[in-house]
Order: sequence, then C-alpha cells, then structure tokens
Amino acid sequence: MASKKQKLKVIPLGGLHEIGKNMTVFEYGKDIIIVDCGLAFPEDDMLGVDIVIPDISYLRANMENIRGIILTHGHEDHIGALPYVLRELRVPVYGSLLTLGLLDNKLKEHKLLNEVEKHTVCPGDEIKLGSFKVEFIHTNHSIADSMALAITTPVGVVLHTGDFKIDYTPIDGDVADLHRFAELGRKGVLLLMSDSTNAERPGYTMSEKSVGYVLNRIFEETPSSRIIVATFSSNIHRIQQVINSAESNRRKVAIIGRSMLNVVKTATELNYLSIKDKTLIDINDIKHYRDDQLVIISTGSQGEAMSALSRIAWGDHKQVSVHPGDKIIISASSIPGNEKDISKVINELLKRGADVVYEGIEDIHVSGHACSEELKLMLALAKPKFFMPVHGEYVHLLSHRNLALSMGIPKEDIFLMQIGEVLELSKKEAKITGTVPAGYLLVDGLGVGDVGNIVLRDRRHLSNDGLMVVVVSIDTESGEIVAGPDIISRGFVYVREAELLMEEAREVVVDALEKCSQRKGWTYMKGIIKDALKNYLWQKTKRSPMILPIIMEV
Amino acid sequence: MASKKQKLKVIPLGGLHEIGKNMTVFEYGKDIIIVDCGLAFPEDDMLGVDIVIPDISYLRANMENIRGIILTHGHEDHIGALPYVLRELRVPVYGSLLTLGLLDNKLKEHKLLNEVEKHTVCPGDEIKLGSFKVEFIHTNHSIADSMALAITTPVGVVLHTGDFKIDYTPIDGDVADLHRFAELGRKGVLLLMSDSTNAERPGYTMSEKSVGYVLNRIFEETPSSRIIVATFSSNIHRIQQVINSAESNRRKVAIIGRSMLNVVKTATELNYLSIKDKTLIDINDIKHYRDDQLVIISTGSQGEAMSALSRIAWGDHKQVSVHPGDKIIISASSIPGNEKDISKVINELLKRGADVVYEGIEDIHVSGHACSEELKLMLALAKPKFFMPVHGEYVHLLSHRNLALSMGIPKEDIFLMQIGEVLELSKKEAKITGTVPAGYLLVDGLGVGDVGNIVLRDRRHLSNDGLMVVVVSIDTESGEIVAGPDIISRGFVYVREAELLMEEAREVVVDALEKCSQRKGWTYMKGIIKDALKNYLWQKTKRSPMILPIIMEV
Repeated sequence: MASKKQKLKVIPLGGLHEIGKNMTVFEYGKDIIIVDCGLAFPEDDMLGVDIVIPDISYLRANMENIRGIILTHGHEDHIGALPYVLRELRVPVYGSLLTLGLLDNKLKEHKLLNEVEKHTVCPGDEIKLGSFKVEFIHTNHSIADSMALAITTPVGVVLHTGDFKIDYTPIDGDVADLHRFAELGRKGVLLLMSDSTNAERPGYTMSEKSVGYVLNRIFEETPSSRIIVATFSSNIHRIQQVINSAESNRRKVAIIGRSMLNVVKTATELNYLSIKDKTLIDINDIKHYRDDQLVIISTGSQGEAMSALSRIAWGDHKQVSVHPGDKIIISASSIPGNEKDISKVINELLKRGADVVYEGIEDIHVSGHACSEELKLMLALAKPKFFMPVHGEYVHLLSHRNLALSMGIPKEDIFLMQIGEVLELSKKEAKITGTVPAGYLLVDGLGVGDVGNIVLRDRRHLSNDGLMVVVVSIDTESGEIVAGPDIISRGFVYVREAELLMEEAREVVVDALEKCSQRKGWTYMKGIIKDALKNYLWQKTKRSPMILPIIMEV
Repeated sequence: MASKKQKLKVIPLGGLHEIGKNMTVFEYGKDIIIVDCGLAFPEDDMLGVDIVIPDISYLRANMENIRGIILTHGHEDHIGALPYVLRELRVPVYGSLLTLGLLDNKLKEHKLLNEVEKHTVCPGDEIKLGSFKVEFIHTNHSIADSMALAITTPVGVVLHTGDFKIDYTPIDGDVADLHRFAELGRKGVLLLMSDSTNAERPGYTMSEKSVGYVLNRIFEETPSSRIIVATFSSNIHRIQQVINSAESNRRKVAIIGRSMLNVVKTATELNYLSIKDKTLIDINDIKHYRDDQLVIISTGSQGEAMSALSRIAWGDHKQVSVHPGDKIIISASSIPGNEKDISKVINELLKRGADVVYEGIEDIHVSGHACSEELKLMLALAKPKFFMPVHGEYVHLLSHRNLALSMGIPKEDIFLMQIGEVLELSKKEAKITGTVPAGYLLVDGLGVGDVGNIVLRDRRHLSNDGLMVVVVSIDTESGEIVAGPDIISRGFVYVREAELLMEEAREVVVDALEKCSQRKGWTYMKGIIKDALKNYLWQKTKRSPMILPIIMEV
C-alpha cells in the first residue's frame, strides 16, 4: 500500500498543445493507470509519415506498475495508438462496447486481436485498479458511448471529461449525466481535466438532432434525385439520422468507403444502429434502383485523396459515377488543413453536374465538442479545487483557462501543462514538480520511430529541389579516374531539355577532381565535388538539389 | 482595317477554375490586347515550385499583333507574371500610377526596368489600341487604384470589372463609378466579364472603413501596450487606417517585412499614403520609445514561414521580440490552405504572452471582393447581352452564373469558360468556337517551365520515402564486379539504426547480380536490381523509396 505521504502524479503524454495523440498517465505509489492512447495526423512538414503516436518511454520503464488503459471513447485520437502501444505494454484495456468493437477492428489488422485482455464497461460502472477507482459517466459527443471518468485516488477525485458536449436532445436519448457531475462537485473534485477543443467559441454547440431536421428538409426538397451523404465514419448518430431520413423517404441505403463499411458493420452488430431489414443494399445493386430510391453514405468528407468521395469526384469510383442532378451532402466541417482538399472535391463534383450541399450553405454539421457556455457549466458543476484544461492547441487551452478565471478559479490553481510535465497533487496542494520523457514517434509503413529529424530533413530537401548523384571510379593504386564522373539527377530538372546544364555540371566535377589530390582522402574529395557543383548549380538555376558524390575504389 | 464580317475573340488564359493567374486576351482582326498578367501560388503537390504563371504560347505565336497589356490593379494575381512575360513580349503596358509603381519594383528585381514601355492612365482616360478603345473606370478593391475596363470593339462594348467591390465609404473617398456603369448599361454592353471570387457569399461586403472603427476601438482599449499589426502589404487603405489610428493615439509607426517596406515606400512616394512628418521611425529606433508610443506594421498575416511576423513568433526576428502584454492584430483572413500556418503563428505568439486579435475574435478584416448583392447590382447596371463570370474556382463561377440566371439572363447567353477556349462574338451572337494552347508554367528559381510533371512526380516520390542509390563497378571485359555494390540512402531510414536492413539490402543486390547475365545489357541488369530491392524493402518496411541503380563500366 502507498504511504500517506505519497502524492498523485498526473502526467499528460499527449493532447496538449496539439489536436490528437491524447494520453494521460495517473500514478500513485506503485500503481499507474493510463487514460486514452490516441494518434495524431502528421504535420505538413512530416513528409511521407502515416501517423504520429506518443512516446511511451516513461511507461516502458514502469511497465510492471501499469494496472490498465482506460478509454473514454472510440475516436482515432483516443484509441489510434493502441495497436502500437499494446505490442509493448501487455495490460488490460477498459472501454465501452462500441469503443472496444472499434478497437477490435484495429487489433485484427495488426494481428493482435487475441493478445489483448479487454473489459467492457458501461456508464455507472466502477472498476478498481490498484489504488484507483475509476467510475464511468455518460457524456455526449460525436461518437456514441463517450464517457467521462471520475477517478478516485487516495488524495481525492480527479474528473476527466474526455471529449464531450452537452446535448439536451441527443440521438440515443441520454443527456450527459449532469446529475452525477453535480454530485461529484458537491462531494468535492480535487482536479478537473476538461476538453478545450471549442473553448474559443462562445455559446453552445447545437444538438446533433438539429442536423437531422436539416437532412429531413433536404430529403423532402429532393424528391427525384439520388442523394449521396459524406460524413465521418465514426459519427454513428449522424449515420443513424441519414438512415432515418432515407427510411422515411422510402430510399434504400448503400455504404461505400472502407472505414464506413467497417464502422457500420461493427455498430450494427453491437446494436448501435437501428436499421430496418431491407434498408441496406450492396453498392453493386444500386443499378437496380431509380435515383429517387437511393441514398449512398460515403467516406471522404475531408477531401482525403483516396476516399470514396474523392474517387467519385474524379470519376474514378468503380460503382458510383456522378450524374447531373445528384444531390451530394458533405455533412462535416473542415478539419484545419483540409480546406483546400475539400474545395477541390466540391469543384469536381459541381463540374459533373451534382448539386453539392456543404457547411456554409446549410447547417448540416454540428461539432462534438462543448463551447464556452457548456465548459462553464462543467466547471460550475464540478467546482474543482484545481483545473487543467486538456485536448487542444495553446490557443484553446488558454481560452479555457480564461473561462475558469472568469468564474473565480484562482490563477495559481489552473495548470497549463506541457506533455511530459508531472503535476503532483496532495489533498491540498498541486504543483508541477518535474518532467518525464515525452514526445512523439513517427509511423511510416512498418517503421515506428525510425523516421526522425535527419530523414525528414532529407525528404524536405529532396522534395524542394531533387537530387544529383555524381559517381566516379578511381583506381586506388594509380589514383586515376577509371570511369565517370557520371551524373544522374532526379526531381531537379527535366534532363532531356537541360543537356547543356548537365554537360557543364560534369565539367565542373572534372575540374574539381583535377584540382584536388586524393591524398587528402575521399571525404575531402567528396566535399570538393559537392561545393563546386553546389555553387555552379545555384549560380545557374538558383536551386540547391541534394548532391550525393560517390567514389568507387577499383 | 478589319472587315465587317470579323468577330471579336475573347480568350481567357488564366483565372478561370482557379484563384490567380488572371489573364485575358481580346482579339479582333490583326489586333490583340491583353488584360492583366498575374501569377498563381503553387498547389500543395507542386513541390519546390515558387510561382505559377500562364502559358503564353498563343501570344508568342501572334506577337506582332499585340497592341498592349492593360492592368486593372497591382495585385500579384494580376501583375505577378509580367516580369516573365515581358521578357518575351516587348509590348507597352498601361496601368494606374500605383499599379505601375508596384510593377517597377518587380521589373527592378528582374533587371527589366528600362526595357519596358509604360503608360500611366487614370479613371476616365480612354486609350486607342488598334481596333480597340479602352476606357478606365474607377472601382473599389483591397488595393488603391483598381479599375474596371470598358473595351469598345467593332462589335460592341465589353465591360471587364477587374477585381472589385462597391464601397460607399471608401478610404480614398471615391465610390466605384456606378454612374459610368449605368451609362454603359443604357447604351448597351455586349459582354460583361465580372469578378466571381465572393459570388457564393450572400449580402454585401462591408466597407473598408468598418475595419478602421474596430482598429480605433482596439487602440483606445490598449492604452499602455505596444501594438503590432500584420496585414497584406498591398492593402494600402488598411495601412493608412493603421497609421491614422496610430497618429490619433500619438504613436510612432515602424514598418517591418521586405514587401511591406517596398510598398509603403512606393505608396508614399506616389502620394497614396498620407503620413505625418514624424510618424514613421526606423525599426532600429523602437528601443528609444515606450510600448505605448509604438505601432509596428508587419507582413506575415498568412503565417508565411519566412515573414516578419513568423520570425517574431519564433523569437527569430532581429529587432522585434514579443513581450507579455503586446497587442498583436492580424488584420486579414486566411487564404484557403494557410489556416494551419496562421494558427501556429497565433499559438506561438500567445505562448510568448502576447494578446492576439484575429478574425473570428474581432471584425478586423473585410474582403476586397463583391458579394452576391453587389454582383447583382453590377449585372443590373450593365444589363449585358452576354455574361462571362471570371476570377474564381468552378464553385464561384457557378454561383455567379446562378445569380445571373436569377436575374433573367438566359442560360445560353452565359458562358462558363475553360482557359484557352475562344469565345467569338458578333454584334448579335456569341459562341465558343475553339481552343488555343493554354495552361501553366512552373517557376522554380531561375527556371521557367523546366519543372514539369516528371520532375514533380520524382519530387513527390522522393518526399514520401526518400531514395536508395546502388552503385556497382563492372569490368566490361571480364564482366566481373570490381567494386561494390555500394548502397547509399537518403530520406528513407536512419541508417545508423538500420545497419542490418542495409546489409541485407546489399545482399539482395549481390544475389540479383549473380542471377543475371550482363549479356542482356545494363538496362536489363538495372531493372533486375531495382525489382529485387523494391520487393525486399516493401516486404521489410512497407515503403517504396526511389531506387537508382548505377552501373559503372571500368
């Protein structure tokens, strides 16, 4: 058992100063629990990288103390790193039926399905993990089964909201469990960790049901055309509403896009979607129906290059080609960075004669995250002694802090943390006492962490100006050039139209080689070639391709 | 003289289905005039490309007929390609004082300043160019001196709006010349070509003056802090308003950022900015003033990596470092694609303790383009027989067409063109009769057009997975390997931690070489090496670096 003097450590390993990669460690004595284990999508300058996951060095070093990983909900930024982390940390995972169902899809792909101990929990459940008791509390979000966590520790209760909004008319009928938050607040919450994603936005986030009204209206105004709806595959409530609109307008529904098919399959099996018997049809059967009998639900609401909607837009989808009059609803907002891709898809769909409806034209999307007034409600109910805004870039964390300040929480009781920083809490005090290793690992193909700064720097260099390889074979005994110099370039200039440039570049290398003695060694010689060629190419083209001199000793 | 049977040809060479690269050709008989000559910024997949300019093959082939290039205003997307185009087309250029002043800055950089014949024109002026008469008409826009063009041709009047909005309270006092548009409409406009950028947006664009009110209020609410304002360097009215607010609050103004310095210098010399004698100070002198005596006007409102504001945000600017309390106003909206860069800058500035004001928080920006109601006003005044929406992506052109349709212009009289398409007009008819070569050239460093699809494809390949060079020296007589195979990789994997992989890759090459006879030739042998290595690497890493096999004959 832990001694009374011990403190609770709260260590965010991701999700602060960034969107994604959410992961938090709670440690008391010899017990560690982990909340969420998400991925982030690569920044623009992380060329060729597939996904980004948290650095778990600290957990690897304390493996024997980990009692479990607790999942708040099934979004990628909360569960996406699990297949990588679970390879190393063989610990039990706790989550809702749907969250674990979505996790199973991932574990299957990574051939880990039967390697992981999983426990299904429901709102209201409480589990004991070492010194921790974790209670699951129902919330609302853009995926079903989202839960907040009340973590009872020897020093007090930590309330972690997960991602949430407060929806008074949610699709599944259950408003976020305000009563439980109120009870916890009355009894005393030591630390509140709350979702900051929308802290900048004033007011309230609209109910998911408001999208349903708009969908219904659009369906009614579109009696004779085919309807295609693109949305996030994980937004099961949205999918349910599209299906409802389809059924009440006697339309069949076909699903396209790998992740949409996966999620709909899982959600149907687990009874998260209520679909009439004959509503769903195979995409290959749409030819047997008239346009006014069809709805297609698709991935690609972010303009992703290989998604179903993009392939439709560029006339590249096997089963679906747009025809004039098709009504295409993009039921999503742009995630920052995707704006241009989305507008390209919209332009292409319009060119094919489709009627495209998107955010800004109609209110066909609502956020899954609480706005300022909801965040204040959470702060008011929880009445925490200490407060840590989580999930967001600095601008969001700061806005959330300002909300807390405006409600009278003292500045010194609010902690804007960096990942890796350790917040130590006793019953009365909280302070940042140190740091543990934290950061990110890049996943590229099968490689996890083998693409780092040097590789990325080279990729950026190559992407800007291409490369030039110079090969020369030298007789080690005589020191004479026996072959070459040969010059090969890629991504620099279209060689067939730049023969003169390439020939002169070769001469520059020959001159450089003549001037330097091999006695100073190959590294020296390579440096001379590189400098001479670099100067020549810059002067001629104002470009700096990567130059790779290779000397073969014969 | 042109015969009566001749028709007017209108040929857009850019600015349709894209933002930027605006350029239109008008041709009648042996006379050609060109309206605008702009650049576009590269798409995300145009790696390493600096700017994009129109393909002018058609003009090159008809050089002797060109009577002049007419500029509507001084924005990059209307004049930015001129330094490249004027190298080939030595024709006179017509534009306002400011437009030509900004052009001179460019021509200086390209050492073309004294090579170009330029004529300054004012609103109300009319010039004769072959069969064309061109009248300049005052409009409002986010740069001073924007003009529409009434081009009188033997078959009728073409009204080209340029970029415009209608500002009833503009900073320079002159509302767009609605009377002239009305007169032209009454007399009869054959073809209206009108700016579609904001055609999707309902209502009216706010007056530039509305930004001034907000700036004034923010200045008054910020009595003691330093104020930094980032905006577009070409927005001289905005800069004037910042200077006005500074002067009425007894603050000095320092300018940073190369393009901001250039534009302010040019605009001051040409009397487009009214600045009191002692207002401007050198950035090196800011240390002599208290925070409440200072305003800094900066570039970088789009989060551009090397801009003054970005350097300030990352603590990398020589003269300006942010301190807590600094008020930083980003007086601009995000150009699509720049959202993430801008929010990174905002996050960094906030981390340094600055108070950052941006669009969404305060109304500190207005667009320079007409919204739906203004576009309808232009259509109503001009009452054109034929209509061609210009300047915009397909979604904008289509929205503009829908506005025209709603006002009763028949569908068959509205032309949604592709660049390179030729619209032929007589007094009574208009139809698309053919195409001329059109497209784009990529500018990379000094090279214009030498980066094409093959180079870009290679850059994309290199940027995703890097490269692997395999070199082997072979004795041409014996066919034996005399050196190598050596393997060098860049941007693929961090080699020091992947020695085993690299060693195995080398063995794969050795095996491949042993299996193939050199009698089939080097190309065959290279193919064998490439395939073997590609398969091996994909299986081991699920990556596909570019593989460059080089065989040196000794």
